[in-house]
Amino acid sequence: MERTYHTQMEAARKGIVTPEMEKVAQKENYPVEKIMRWTASGQVVIPANRLHTCIDPNGIGRTLKTKINVNLGVSRDCKDYDIEMQKVMQAVNMGAEAIMDLSSHGNTEPFRKKLTSECPAMIGTVPVYDAVIHYQRDLNTLTARDFIDVVRLHAENGVDFVTLHCGINRDTIKEIKAGKRKMNLVSRGGSLVFAWMSMTGEENPFYQYFDEILDICREYDVTISLGDACRPGCLADATDSVQIGELLRLGELVARARERDVQVMVEGPGHVPMDQIAANMKVEQTICHDAPFYVLGPLVTDIAPGYDHITAAIGGAIAAMNGASFLCYVTPAEHLALPNVDDVHEGIIASKIAAHAADIAKGLPGARDQDDHMADARRKLDWEEQWKYALDPEHARKIRDSRLPEDDHSDTCSMCGKFCAVRSMNKALSGETIDIL
Amino acid sequence: MERTYHTQMEAARKGIVTPEMEKVAQKENYPVEKIMRWTASGQVVIPANRLHTCIDPNGIGRTLKTKINVNLGVSRDCKDYDIEMQKVMQAVNMGAEAIMDLSSHGNTEPFRKKLTSECPAMIGTVPVYDAVIHYQRDLNTLTARDFIDVVRLHAENGVDFVTLHCGINRDTIKEIKAGKRKMNLVSRGGSLVFAWMSMTGEENPFYQYFDEILDICREYDVTISLGDACRPGCLADATDSVQIGELLRLGELVARARERDVQVMVEGPGHVPMDQIAANMKVEQTICHDAPFYVLGPLVTDIAPGYDHITAAIGGAIAAMNGASFLCYVTPAEHLALPNVDDVHEGIIASKIAAHAADIAKGLPGARDQDDHMADARRKLDWEEQWKYALDPEHARKIRDSRLPEDDHSDTCSMCGKFCAVRSMNKALSGETIDIL
Repeated sequence: MERTYHTQMEAARKGIVTPEMEKVAQKENYPVEKIMRWTASGQVVIPANRLHTCIDPNGIGRTLKTKINVNLGVSRDCKDYDIEMQKVMQAVNMGAEAIMDLSSHGNTEPFRKKLTSECPAMIGTVPVYDAVIHYQRDLNTLTARDFIDVVRLHAENGVDFVTLHCGINRDTIKEIKAGKRKMNLVSRGGSLVFAWMSMTGEENPFYQYFDEILDICREYDVTISLGDACRPGCLADATDSVQIGELLRLGELVARARERDVQVMVEGPGHVPMDQIAANMKVEQTICHDAPFYVLGPLVTDIAPGYDHITAAIGGAIAAMNGASFLCYVTPAEHLALPNVDDVHEGIIASKIAAHAADIAKGLPGARDQDDHMADARRKLDWEEQWKYALDPEHARKIRDSRLPEDDHSDTCSMCGKFCAVRSMNKALSGETIDIL
Repeated sequence: MERTYHTQMEAARKGIVTPEMEKVAQKENYPVEKIMRWTASGQVVIPANRLHTCIDPNGIGRTLKTKINVNLGVSRDCKDYDIEMQKVMQAVNMGAEAIMDLSSHGNTEPFRKKLTSECPAMIGTVPVYDAVIHYQRDLNTLTARDFIDVVRLHAENGVDFVTLHCGINRDTIKEIKAGKRKMNLVSRGGSLVFAWMSMTGEENPFYQYFDEILDICREYDVTISLGDACRPGCLADATDSVQIGELLRLGELVARARERDVQVMVEGPGHVPMDQIAANMKVEQTICHDAPFYVLGPLVTDIAPGYDHITAAIGGAIAAMNGASFLCYVTPAEHLALPNVDDVHEGIIASKIAAHAADIAKGLPGARDQDDHMADARRKLDWEEQWKYALDPEHARKIRDSRLPEDDHSDTCSMCGKFCAVRSMNKALSGETIDIL
């Protein structure tokens, strides 16, 4: 059956319920009419390129469950496509709803196509990274046309969302050169656009040719993720005029995208002190017309390299509770090295914890069910039942089994042994004598 | 020189500036008059038993830096005093301001005395745990007098603060028996008091003989940490009538302690959904007359055994930003096993991150300095300088060194290699051509 619409947003606005909306409604326990209404307004996006036929679609928006993204991709220091594909499937199995392919080495197209033909998660890319690699020419030799052609290529490859750093312009160059910031720009894509503009003297191609980009995204239903080139890279730069100035430009672009029925979300900080996170979420909602907010972190301190999955979990949980709807995972290797398989695992778990805790705090229907089952299992000291509801059962079981209580108390663990409060309470409530010695 | 006061609070109320107040003022960058005023009102406590002469004193209160506590102690499943003492000194070196000795095996007094004669951190204990061990008699054979005598013994041993579960009474037994809760009581000490009351039919000795306890604490300047026997052990039980009912009784006891110039803090939850944390902090402040709030967690989800240092870091950071002043560390082994050396390390780091992020959010003077230095080092891609300001330099260095970029770019790391945003920006701002291929 031929589609009578270009994008999910266009369909929603025409009152058409798409199969993707049906799936999202089912997953989120909402009537499909609500999903349609939110998709029409842009408060919810359903990134699903019409060519990515194996996708298991998900909606992103603050009224829905918080989603997480995992960054992967081959690079000069990790070239093996098979290992990377294994990481992708591991991430999907652990519950990641999106994979961003940040490949920056070799022939990137086959891996990208493999992802959109085999992977059920949403696939995102950052075309500006790929431009250098795709053309095998250094940055200063590329033209604005080259960049736009890469966006088209990714759309044709079935990518569901693309990060485009449309919000920096020549004013940004002036501000940064005036020394307004401690960390300048820390967005990889943003720094490439900045460098290209500096070297060529031209305007940002992703801003200048935004209408042409909208044509491409409309044709394939690629969701635009408006990159935050100016996200703060340290607490000192958080919520400054450079960041908010870019946000104002992104707000305008959200409106322009929606005029063409192109789905759009907005990327956000970065490094932000805890007391500024709620304000950041609120400002994004007002300035960007309630477009879904996709945040990296935010990291709540700069001094914890090696543990930035934790600093990001704190910030991400607070952000999601206050309106962010999509969390980019951060691994313990952030700021230090390419994450290995263990780092990817730790990063995903930390993000899932943040997302889940926020969903409970938002009072989403059924969000706390798993926690309640866990509590019941704990009260019964039923360990097999506890593993059923644990986020990472294998890891939890391993810790307990490595240090069982010395005495034969299969009901307790070695943390408290016979002092176990649950054991004491169960005995007290059933009238048994408590033996502790 | 003989002391003309019993407790720090009495001194403060008499307008006497003690050496302990001087030290606290220096550490917190406040004039000593402020510390004295806060100590007089009870908003700040300085736990320092007059017999713990080697203490490096610290203040606890919401206007001061957030402090962290590390639980250690020998148990049936970990009997070696020397290993435990090593863990204590490791914790102190990592920045723990307090150590709670939860020893529950063997002859506990020598280890307790060793702590108060060698360790500069505040030492806390939970006398009700020790009662069973000290007398080597099972719970139902102990008398109210036995419990009070153990409190005195700990005071004589130089302990700076004692957790006493004074807030449960026979009404609590009724409520719990009526099945008001999913997880009943999960406080180890609270469950022992509950069990003892159930078995003997008597009233809670720590409540009934509270005046006598105040005499002991006044004599040695032992700070009372009012234990939250009824802290929620799962999200479903959070902020319920059982918890808040106990808090009301604790508020009365705070007032009674302060009448005798006895320093007092209040212990708090537990497992709490994120959206309830700020309310919990506010209610504690009003009901308990702004007594310092000492929280365990709060854990923001129940489903992450093996990662509860992360769920606690999220909750602890939010709690501390909203008024908690003292965080009890939680390790990855929580709910599963006795923590090993690695778990203790992970738990301390996660707590330090939460405490530090909260201090920044509270806007404490100088709280962000270390972060700003880190940002400067990052902008300069000066890795040796970054290690200087990292919370765990050894760990961070190890990650970077294990996966250096393949090409000779000593300035970047393998996360981005030549795509490093900082490198690109530095080159762009100095007018250099960016080489990425």
